[in-house]
Amino acid sequence: MSDPSALESSPIQREKTATSYTYDRLPGWRRYRALHPFRGMYHDVRRRLPYYWSDITDAWTYRTIASTIRMYFVNILPAIAYTLDMYRRTGEFFGINEALFSSALAAMVFSILGAQPLTIVGITGLISLFNYTIYDTIVIYEPAIYANFMCWTAIWAAIFHWIVAVCNFCDYMRYVTDFSSESFGAYVGIIYCIKGVEELVNEFTEHGLAAGYLSCLIAVLYFLTIYGLEWLGSSTICRPWFRGLLADYAYVIGTIFWVGFAHFPGNLKATGISFVPISKAFYPTQPRGWLIHFWELEVKWVFAALPFGFLVMLLFYYDHNVSSLTAQARQFPLKKPAGFHWDFFLLGCTTFIAGITGIPMPNGLVPQAPVHTDSLTIYETDLHIIHTTSSEDASIRQPTIKATAVVEQRISHFLMGLAIIGTMTRPLLIVLHTMPAAVFAGVFFIVGWGSIESNGILKKMIFLLKENRFVQRDEPLLRVKRGKIVLYILCEVVPVAACVAISQTIAAIGFPILIIAMIPFRVWIIPRWFSQSELDILDDLTANNSAVLKSLGGPPKFPGEKEENYGVVRRYSEERSGHVRQRTGSITR
Amino acid sequence: MSDPSALESSPIQREKTATSYTYDRLPGWRRYRALHPFRGMYHDVRRRLPYYWSDITDAWTYRTIASTIRMYFVNILPAIAYTLDMYRRTGEFFGINEALFSSALAAMVFSILGAQPLTIVGITGLISLFNYTIYDTIVIYEPAIYANFMCWTAIWAAIFHWIVAVCNFCDYMRYVTDFSSESFGAYVGIIYCIKGVEELVNEFTEHGLAAGYLSCLIAVLYFLTIYGLEWLGSSTICRPWFRGLLADYAYVIGTIFWVGFAHFPGNLKATGISFVPISKAFYPTQPRGWLIHFWELEVKWVFAALPFGFLVMLLFYYDHNVSSLTAQARQFPLKKPAGFHWDFFLLGCTTFIAGITGIPMPNGLVPQAPVHTDSLTIYETDLHIIHTTSSEDASIRQPTIKATAVVEQRISHFLMGLAIIGTMTRPLLIVLHTMPAAVFAGVFFIVGWGSIESNGILKKMIFLLKENRFVQRDEPLLRVKRGKIVLYILCEVVPVAACVAISQTIAAIGFPILIIAMIPFRVWIIPRWFSQSELDILDDLTANNSAVLKSLGGPPKFPGEKEENYGVVRRYSEERSGHVRQRTGSITR
Repeated sequence: MSDPSALESSPIQREKTATSYTYDRLPGWRRYRALHPFRGMYHDVRRRLPYYWSDITDAWTYRTIASTIRMYFVNILPAIAYTLDMYRRTGEFFGINEALFSSALAAMVFSILGAQPLTIVGITGLISLFNYTIYDTIVIYEPAIYANFMCWTAIWAAIFHWIVAVCNFCDYMRYVTDFSSESFGAYVGIIYCIKGVEELVNEFTEHGLAAGYLSCLIAVLYFLTIYGLEWLGSSTICRPWFRGLLADYAYVIGTIFWVGFAHFPGNLKATGISFVPISKAFYPTQPRGWLIHFWELEVKWVFAALPFGFLVMLLFYYDHNVSSLTAQARQFPLKKPAGFHWDFFLLGCTTFIAGITGIPMPNGLVPQAPVHTDSLTIYETDLHIIHTTSSEDASIRQPTIKATAVVEQRISHFLMGLAIIGTMTRPLLIVLHTMPAAVFAGVFFIVGWGSIESNGILKKMIFLLKENRFVQRDEPLLRVKRGKIVLYILCEVVPVAACVAISQTIAAIGFPILIIAMIPFRVWIIPRWFSQSELDILDDLTANNSAVLKSLGGPPKFPGEKEENYGVVRRYSEERSGHVRQRTGSITR
Repeated sequence: MSDPSALESSPIQREKTATSYTYDRLPGWRRYRALHPFRGMYHDVRRRLPYYWSDITDAWTYRTIASTIRMYFVNILPAIAYTLDMYRRTGEFFGINEALFSSALAAMVFSILGAQPLTIVGITGLISLFNYTIYDTIVIYEPAIYANFMCWTAIWAAIFHWIVAVCNFCDYMRYVTDFSSESFGAYVGIIYCIKGVEELVNEFTEHGLAAGYLSCLIAVLYFLTIYGLEWLGSSTICRPWFRGLLADYAYVIGTIFWVGFAHFPGNLKATGISFVPISKAFYPTQPRGWLIHFWELEVKWVFAALPFGFLVMLLFYYDHNVSSLTAQARQFPLKKPAGFHWDFFLLGCTTFIAGITGIPMPNGLVPQAPVHTDSLTIYETDLHIIHTTSSEDASIRQPTIKATAVVEQRISHFLMGLAIIGTMTRPLLIVLHTMPAAVFAGVFFIVGWGSIESNGILKKMIFLLKENRFVQRDEPLLRVKRGKIVLYILCEVVPVAACVAISQTIAAIGFPILIIAMIPFRVWIIPRWFSQSELDILDDLTANNSAVLKSLGGPPKFPGEKEENYGVVRRYSEERSGHVRQRTGSITR
């Protein structure tokens, strides 16, 4: 490996190294990426390692602190929320200690060893759905083997992860477009909202009417508080620094207030709503050791776990890599390169560790991932004056937000991990115990709604609903026939509806197949129904950052495509109002 | 009286008649309006009577139906809400039957005999405040005399009303500016919100925790439903007719949904929240006849009631006339003339009847009055294109709402009155009984917040908070020093704070003095602190419609004023976005 400082000082040489990972012009057998084992991982490390020292030295700014605090809340709140759900639905196998252990493990591994330290890894709603669906399946046969079965599922999943990483299959992520990631975002958002409702329903069944209604009230008001604070943070009131504070600490302010509210002496305290259940610090929730005795499982069950392991890998393949893609999307002015193969290999390792210790398997957090990059981005609110043809005074003044730089480093991720380890100790577990479950229902709603509100599907629907004469004439969607937009929305909505429908059944674990199937559908079927100029407007590459595409073997080649010009709508929107600040839960622009 | 058709066919003659009511150029003793008894009332009738037939024939449009339904809800819901409060706080003297009787009486009298049939008259929060504050005072001495004492208060109030009407003192209403009406609007809005909270607190104390929390939840969600529907109604989605439906029937939709919600079988039904208490149809709530035996009151109490009667008159003088002013404000393209003196005389009559029958005294509904005119206005959403100096395509397209005509008639008011009479029958009383008190808390919030959100005081505060560079350069407020705006806001806020503070004490009934005192304060003190050009921007005439000013003896003459140019801000806002549709509760633009 060449000297990092030399690399950094010579942009030409760096450019050469970075672009050297591609299969596009290779002849014969060399075109098959599976026949180049470890090539992607090698290039990922080689590309990223020279920046390692700067990942530490670049961190000495205020943004790192703000980011650490914001991400701690945005990571840990939904994680605990899902754990409440998992705890009840897996026979109390996965508890708070497991969740914290898993989050801490992921944060440590990916902040120290990851090639993409911006991608926050932790517990998602989908793995929770996976875990309890497997539980529902297993209890039909043999409840006692759940721990061992989950362990083997994870071991198989880890093996598939390593195969994918070694064979460079992450390259196919470059074909992911907003077509599938919008659907995925909508699906995740809807699942979050459903989980929020389930959390509240549980309050009614377990603690009675008063506790149930109070929980509903707290959830709704928590939602409104965070929504209002984030809205104020993106308005033009007061000074920019004050708005920045509101945007950075909306979760902190909202959570502290509503947790305190639930403890008000008198009626509120007397209502007896439920709080986060905790157990002895650093011990598993169940009376067991941290090592799962996986060698005690019958062989037939070991192999029965194989397809489940494959499904987990499919889920993580999409979920983790899309979260890396969105955390490194084009709207962030990133300078440091990506490394998908290496990170997916690491994810295999954490999946393996999670398996043999009996903790939930962590992976990239889809709605939260871009929030980390956003919290590290230095924004400037500029004045955008639109001159009108009437008098000079009547020109229209609008704020445009510009992302000037991103504090790319791994310290905020690392510190967040330390904070989670701290949370595992008894004193902070007791603090966790003060938090009412209702607040987590509110978290579900705010994150879920964020993912729906900012979704491209909803935006296209609103465009269709809007009275035509009030649409700006330069709106790109006007250049596509309305029928085509309807068809495109249908192609996105049907898989979402299918996923949501099966998520209420034991077939829930099949949803990754549906989502992944949208990628080849987009590549081979969609171009037959839509012209390229229509797709330029309706769709956009999710992997649109050139630094990202370098790790994925260069830009994608869609079949039969002459000249692609994706991102028309994105550029149009950026031109008019600049960069839109990331709200928690929004996966796409 | 001349032939009405002749009057209408000859605009010159009509103009002459209409302007003939003035004291401006009269010499000697003739300048004193009190020395011309009945002159205002005579001119009011003479001006308005020729339009009586057209008030009936003009009513054959769909808008009359939409208006009847909307106003029925907007009038009756807050009236019942206040009655719930009054019922508890006056020893159950004023109940639902009294409230319905009072509303029906007012609707019948003012729709048939009123000179201003657009002004909806009914039960306000302030008369409820008055009634229970008097109750609190009376119970200290002699609880049994409350009915007779209230009766004498009303008799004195009626006498003062007639004196004011006969002596043409309503003319002074032309000096009412937004300075005092903004403060009044803010005060009313705050009182509404406080009442909403009190309604919910009552649910906790009387029906326990579960009922309390469910009521809070219903109130919050009811608020969000109406707010959301009205917001959609003023957006640019779908077709104009669909938006019109949403705006017209937001209350109907929201109320029916949330009343139904409270009756869902299962947990919701089992919670046992409180519903509107009803009693035998057409009978007083207390075991008494409809005639109060006022002749049985001791003479010392008769005279003790005199100052209270005077305060009622002061309240109605401001409250009723301001509601007429806002119902006939300049933004509505009204063609038919006003008649303040005649209507105030009628108000004396309804006050008298209310007194001797023991029902709450009705008067003009401040926040709801302009909603009636709004519901009768035919709006057109026009396309306003702002041409920019860049390409033609990039021009900005905004909706501007234009009020093209108002269906000026008295049938919607009359039908609404009939509907209220219908509500007094047993079958519809039982329907009323299905309505949870929580919905009324929601009504308080939506009407109260509407009055605060649209208030000029809040708008000026937001202007001060906004980051300066994003304020449009032609914003008129930029021409006033910031310190002066702060001073002006303080002058408005201090009386509001004083009124709110005393409204929690037995001195509450003194608030009309404070509000009325703001008129001379504005006329004599404010011009010493602010220049005329500043006041042109900060203040505006509330009586700004020339058809209205004809009934008030012509435009006001502020002392020392050279050239007034009020309404700078209003004209600026109308130029940019047209007429803003009236949301319930908003008193000023």
